[in-house]
Amino acid sequence: MAQHHHEDLFENRKQFQLERLILFSDAVFAIAITLLVIEIRVPEIDNKTNVLEHLKDELWLRFPQFFGFVLSFTVIGQFWTNHHRLFGLVNNFNNGLLWLNLHMLFWIVLVPFTSGLNSHYGDLDLVWQIYSLNLFMIGLSLFFLNRYIGNPKRNLSEFAHDRLSKKYAYLRSLSVASIFLLGAIFAGLRGYFFYYAARYIYILIPFVLSIINRAANKRIAK
Amino acid sequence: MAQHHHEDLFENRKQFQLERLILFSDAVFAIAITLLVIEIRVPEIDNKTNVLEHLKDELWLRFPQFFGFVLSFTVIGQFWTNHHRLFGLVNNFNNGLLWLNLHMLFWIVLVPFTSGLNSHYGDLDLVWQIYSLNLFMIGLSLFFLNRYIGNPKRNLSEFAHDRLSKKYAYLRSLSVASIFLLGAIFAGLRGYFFYYAARYIYILIPFVLSIINRAANKRIAK
Amino acid sequence: MAQHHHEDLFENRKQFQLERLILFSDAVFAIAITLLVIEIRVPEIDNKTNVLEHLKDELWLRFPQFFGFVLSFTVIGQFWTNHHRLFGLVNNFNNGLLWLNLHMLFWIVLVPFTSGLNSHYGDLDLVWQIYSLNLFMIGLSLFFLNRYIGNPKRNLSEFAHDRLSKKYAYLRSLSVASIFLLGAIFAGLRGYFFYYAARYIYILIPFVLSIINRAANKRIAK
Amino acid sequence: MAQHHHEDLFENRKQFQLERLILFSDAVFAIAITLLVIEIRVPEIDNKTNVLEHLKDELWLRFPQFFGFVLSFTVIGQFWTNHHRLFGLVNNFNNGLLWLNLHMLFWIVLVPFTSGLNSHYGDLDLVWQIYSLNLFMIGLSLFFLNRYIGNPKRNLSEFAHDRLSKKYAYLRSLSVASIFLLGAIFAGLRGYFFYYAARYIYILIPFVLSIINRAANKRIAK
Repeated sequence: MAQHHHEDLFENRKQFQLERLILFSDAVFAIAITLLVIEIRVPEIDNKTNVLEHLKDELWLRFPQFFGFVLSFTVIGQFWTNHHRLFGLVNNFNNGLLWLNLHMLFWIVLVPFTSGLNSHYGDLDLVWQIYSLNLFMIGLSLFFLNRYIGNPKRNLSEFAHDRLSKKYAYLRSLSVASIFLLGAIFAGLRGYFFYYAARYIYILIPFVLSIINRAANKRIAK
Repeated sequence: MAQHHHEDLFENRKQFQLERLILFSDAVFAIAITLLVIEIRVPEIDNKTNVLEHLKDELWLRFPQFFGFVLSFTVIGQFWTNHHRLFGLVNNFNNGLLWLNLHMLFWIVLVPFTSGLNSHYGDLDLVWQIYSLNLFMIGLSLFFLNRYIGNPKRNLSEFAHDRLSKKYAYLRSLSVASIFLLGAIFAGLRGYFFYYAARYIYILIPFVLSIINRAANKRIAK
Repeated sequence: MAQHHHEDLFENRKQFQLERLILFSDAVFAIAITLLVIEIRVPEIDNKTNVLEHLKDELWLRFPQFFGFVLSFTVIGQFWTNHHRLFGLVNNFNNGLLWLNLHMLFWIVLVPFTSGLNSHYGDLDLVWQIYSLNLFMIGLSLFFLNRYIGNPKRNLSEFAHDRLSKKYAYLRSLSVASIFLLGAIFAGLRGYFFYYAARYIYILIPFVLSIINRAANKRIAK
Repeated sequence: MAQHHHEDLFENRKQFQLERLILFSDAVFAIAITLLVIEIRVPEIDNKTNVLEHLKDELWLRFPQFFGFVLSFTVIGQFWTNHHRLFGLVNNFNNGLLWLNLHMLFWIVLVPFTSGLNSHYGDLDLVWQIYSLNLFMIGLSLFFLNRYIGNPKRNLSEFAHDRLSKKYAYLRSLSVASIFLLGAIFAGLRGYFFYYAARYIYILIPFVLSIINRAANKRIAK
């Protein structure tokens, strides 16, 4: 009985250490997603006459910033739901997992900066490339996490023994990363087509994910 | 026995995934509510003589900012208690709930910006409209969350099978949202009455909520 | 058995709702304590010659800011340990507790602003009064929380039925609040004595607390 | 049975109080690590012609800031994994532990400031000394935490009775602290060798840690 109690405590502690890793990540996600709004500064209008007109102009100028804010919020939100799903399958941790997760958080923490760059200079191809590469690195680091957790030798998850689920999880994270990489490449190419393709390719993500999810549900249900 | 243990672990994991969703939301609430104070900047006084008089003037000028800070703090606090109550009834989650919750957090994250606008240009009707619409969108997204969680098909909560509690929960969230919408509409109308009505209508919220709560307690106690 | 399981789930949910209240408070504490450092801005030196000398001067000028940072960090840390101790005794929650706790967090969130004021204009009595009153309000709101939790009618804690522990808890929170109030009053009086008394009276806090704790331990041990 | 239930509740509460201490620390770690990016400001370019060239220059000038950001992120990440490992062994808390932990968080909270200084004036020896001393103080405060938790009289951890594990834990935290202290000392000495030694000595940390870990694993496995 005492032995049993002791084992329970030990198991609880191990679970809490894993939960701590997850909640720490969430705190970083939450701060990064909230800092995004700081880039849209409240306009300061020195002119005392016609404040309303000046304010309207200033808010109108901030429209691309606001659009960038919505985009970055959605993208970080998307990565958070991925992280939420992935770690729902994890029941153990090791030092490697801690550092791979920190590596992903590094790219998350950078987003308020590259998103701010993008809000101010979004028409420059260089800036859109930097922003897309940042998002690509988040996608890639999530793929690395998937691979690490899916490796049966690491003994981190039941998921490691489920070949079909693993295949679709890898496909999902690679597809998202590839779309961001394509965005970065397109932004480096000339011409109107690539200019707009680089900026609107992200609309594909939900469609690609829903196709993969539908296929996965069919195959795994069998 | 082993089977039982395994089921417990699985149930714990599912519970933790739900708790993670809630604690992530709280982190966003907490950061948004704390960022509000950043808008009230410490005054910088270049004049070296009579610093005290200049500081008094500057602090006096910040009075509307301080008032806006109190209002936004109270409103976010009110929404947080709503979210706390609502998710106390939830015992499951799905992808839709994650995204509906992210949608609500989006409008929460915007508050430090619209509240900052409001602190600086609160006498402009346009600004008060933007601020009121932001708060309305939080109220509306909480109503959506209520509806989603209250839908028996989603299987997210016992609450979905309790028609009376649902009715009053919907009423509560719709009333709060409506008051913010009225504030936004009034701010768009001309005349002194609407100018002040748009700014002071929020005082109604605690009264309306307490009337609904009293009615709910009576009916549900029966 | 099923009934028992259901009761356990309900009890777990109630515990988590209380834990959520506490962890939300901690997030606010953590953000407020970290924002303090933002007030100490990295100096920007335009002069390209003799950067080192200019930087030394600038850092030296920041010394009172750094001192203010240490003081505010310690005070928020002290309030956090109080909150930690108090909520260790709580095993239930209600709407009143949520709002009393939000009221305390309101004054916590203000600290980065009043502490920033204090770092820049700490020699002005008005500023030191504002800062001391802010800290007094935190102390007072913690006393209110103590009273509310200690009220047997609220049914929030076993602590409510322990008259001796309650007496010492009230004494502790009232003493801390009184010292901050004295600081605010002294700052409003003239003369060198009160100028320094207002600024150094806080050193008393650990001594007063340790005297109360020693007395409490003796009496309660009996 | 009722007695047993009551003891369980009490044990759960004590565990949660410890978890609260840990999650509060994580929130501070997470905010400090995310604030680092705020120092790399989005460049503001007034010149309307040749924006791209100006932006490239500005980003190039920010390279040392970016490098400083990577370094500080890695170092805070390293300290977080140490804290994660150490508190995985703790199963109790007292007032002393709360304050020793707050002491460590104090030095963590300072990092965004000293790291910002370092990004702007990293070629000045004084600035590198301040930065290194900050990191040294984190390492030292972690050593203090190790000592406190490892003291059998405190009754905080099973770890206190495991002489070999303790020895290696002390060695680990002292080595990391010593390397940062060496960095600070080197930065105060003249000549090219010490200039670079002070800046690149941190590369040693992972190697030293892996040597200690390998030795520990060998000895403890026996």
